[in-house]
Amino acid sequence: MKIITLTTDFGYGDFGIGQMRGAIWKIAPEARIIDLTNDINPQDVNQAALILGRTTPNFPTGTIHVVVVDPGVGTQRRPIAAQLGSQYFVGPDNGVFSLMLENGRESGGPIDIIHLDKPQYWLENVTSVFHGRDIFSPVAGYIAAGTPLDKLGSPIQDTLLLEVLRAARTEQGWDAQVIYIDSFGNLQVNLRKKDIKDVGEIIFQIGQVKIQGMVNTFGERPKGELVALIDSFDHLCISIVNGSAAKVLNSQVGDTIKVTITHSKRMI
Amino acid sequence: MKIITLTTDFGYGDFGIGQMRGAIWKIAPEARIIDLTNDINPQDVNQAALILGRTTPNFPTGTIHVVVVDPGVGTQRRPIAAQLGSQYFVGPDNGVFSLMLENGRESGGPIDIIHLDKPQYWLENVTSVFHGRDIFSPVAGYIAAGTPLDKLGSPIQDTLLLEVLRAARTEQGWDAQVIYIDSFGNLQVNLRKKDIKDVGEIIFQIGQVKIQGMVNTFGERPKGELVALIDSFDHLCISIVNGSAAKVLNSQVGDTIKVTITHSKRMI
Amino acid sequence: MKIITLTTDFGYGDFGIGQMRGAIWKIAPEARIIDLTNDINPQDVNQAALILGRTTPNFPTGTIHVVVVDPGVGTQRRPIAAQLGSQYFVGPDNGVFSLMLENGRESGGPIDIIHLDKPQYWLENVTSVFHGRDIFSPVAGYIAAGTPLDKLGSPIQDTLLLEVLRAARTEQGWDAQVIYIDSFGNLQVNLRKKDIKDVGEIIFQIGQVKIQGMVNTFGERPKGELVALIDSFDHLCISIVNGSAAKVLNSQVGDTIKVTITHSKRMI
Repeated sequence: MKIITLTTDFGYGDFGIGQMRGAIWKIAPEARIIDLTNDINPQDVNQAALILGRTTPNFPTGTIHVVVVDPGVGTQRRPIAAQLGSQYFVGPDNGVFSLMLENGRESGGPIDIIHLDKPQYWLENVTSVFHGRDIFSPVAGYIAAGTPLDKLGSPIQDTLLLEVLRAARTEQGWDAQVIYIDSFGNLQVNLRKKDIKDVGEIIFQIGQVKIQGMVNTFGERPKGELVALIDSFDHLCISIVNGSAAKVLNSQVGDTIKVTITHSKRMI
Repeated sequence: MKIITLTTDFGYGDFGIGQMRGAIWKIAPEARIIDLTNDINPQDVNQAALILGRTTPNFPTGTIHVVVVDPGVGTQRRPIAAQLGSQYFVGPDNGVFSLMLENGRESGGPIDIIHLDKPQYWLENVTSVFHGRDIFSPVAGYIAAGTPLDKLGSPIQDTLLLEVLRAARTEQGWDAQVIYIDSFGNLQVNLRKKDIKDVGEIIFQIGQVKIQGMVNTFGERPKGELVALIDSFDHLCISIVNGSAAKVLNSQVGDTIKVTITHSKRMI
Repeated sequence: MKIITLTTDFGYGDFGIGQMRGAIWKIAPEARIIDLTNDINPQDVNQAALILGRTTPNFPTGTIHVVVVDPGVGTQRRPIAAQLGSQYFVGPDNGVFSLMLENGRESGGPIDIIHLDKPQYWLENVTSVFHGRDIFSPVAGYIAAGTPLDKLGSPIQDTLLLEVLRAARTEQGWDAQVIYIDSFGNLQVNLRKKDIKDVGEIIFQIGQVKIQGMVNTFGERPKGELVALIDSFDHLCISIVNGSAAKVLNSQVGDTIKVTITHSKRMI
């Protein structure tokens, strides 16, 4: 049993998603298919890369992640597949898997990237506009069915990588960004638990608003209080207890969170 | 083959839903997983309870309903699982299963409620913010795989129950509430078929508007007419034929429907 | 392994969809169920018919398409099932399968239409308002499980068909319509590749805006340029490269695309 996840910018309701499922199940009827999300901002490769970096490590070993955020479809950009540590990726070579690659390298697992150049593993009629259905879905089906990566294409080293996806170090701490706002209005931030643990006093600044220190969970503080905590993906999250931080702070994806660390504990 | 349903307030597009599916399938790869709905109003435990009460009786015997409407996650509120007649529940002990419990009792089937206090059945790293993925999903997987409830935790009797979920009796009939508005603008109401069948003349009042009597289906009346009928969940529904009752009546969840019954038939 | 697709006007979040899955899996636990789309405009039988005509030919042979866009539910309109070439249809006899029927006829495959009049293949309690769950879903389950169509009902010839779903021929070319706007703002049009291939010079007019000729894919032109191309369903699509044609042109479903063909190539 293999799990295949789909990440697209199609929106829910778009029939392209159903077409991809049909194309996968034609080849791998036993595959379990999950919509990771279809709500990536249209053609926002950066957002997709950030979300994949946060979420894919939680999936079982061998999970295959198909990504169709693909503004360059039908041009020279290559279709690729990859084994990145314990996870697989299938999608366009536009950098969308940059953090998955970083995660894979950090895990010490195998890294193999393949240019998908063997049309016998694709749909018979490949359009210029929907490689998600015509190339990526059948390839994911073949991987799920056990076909080794090197049969599906030729190894490459020179993939396109995105930069500036992680928070930037500053003299006092970090400049981080809001990368996603969930349905509760929580601000999800591109700063990892390991970047801010055991650091002494910490202050988060969003616009003119400051938050001192962190909590473990929403329930520690009264309703309406603004808090910083580590979310379920081991990243920083700015929330209002039983409320919407995005509304109250008028925040948007891309906003900066200034993180100041004072090592006062060790200064004595 | 077991069916597991998911009910959350995450909204579609949130990647938490996919993470829950991954955590379930890791343990029970044969489980069939259904999104009952991910559009519960954020942290609206009452709405979730009402919808579960209406919809879960229609699922096959043995279906497992995982509910993640969980404002108290990470606090003292307990994670629980339960057998309620022919259906199973896994979620927070915040009253969200109150009507499922009532349905289970009315069915005369077994009622067993378990405090989930055995971490060996959870994910290895349990966060303070997402028990839906870390506790409820793996537990649902174990139930689907045949693990008996009493292995997963300790029996309890003192669960939290919500009140005022059913319509209230009045001298003339009922005071009921709109509990959900569907995509057609139909007003779904917390009054059951059995509460209003064989009652003589019946009048429904929403604001200043009155509806006399009921119809069997939309098609009995001309386009644009306001009607009361029993919906597919055996509850009262206020609709406009081929239109949106919510728009025309400017209605919202929580609005009162005043029901007046005159037993004129028997008064002769 | 059989694939069953669902097409409804329920919107995502509606629990009717989960109820249909439950009713199908009760009978055909091995069925793979796909949401083709749940975002049909409420009761818009024409839109559903157009989308089914475009998308169903891409599914594997034997796929069963359940359609619940059903304003006449509970009235005299008949529930039907059909084999239409290599695909199956289950739904209301309201013309929603008109283009699937046309596709089936063009493919030369068998055409069999059945009035579903055998209640032993339905849920025990059939409501007047949700045949999608009570009749169509269990019938789809039986078809998936191998029950022959003629056991499920009686053959009929006189189904209701919709007209004016295809673009109309004009003296200079075609009058076509926008039938769907996807999440990117692309205008999907009811004109097929085969209607406009090899036709010499072609001009598309939307309102006062004209597009000369076609491209193969978005990437051929600079960002912001308005282009006409064949989409992944072999139909005409009007797009703006890396932008939203719907926004820029202020277009809506139903808008006319005037197509003018000048056979200048052959006029020499």
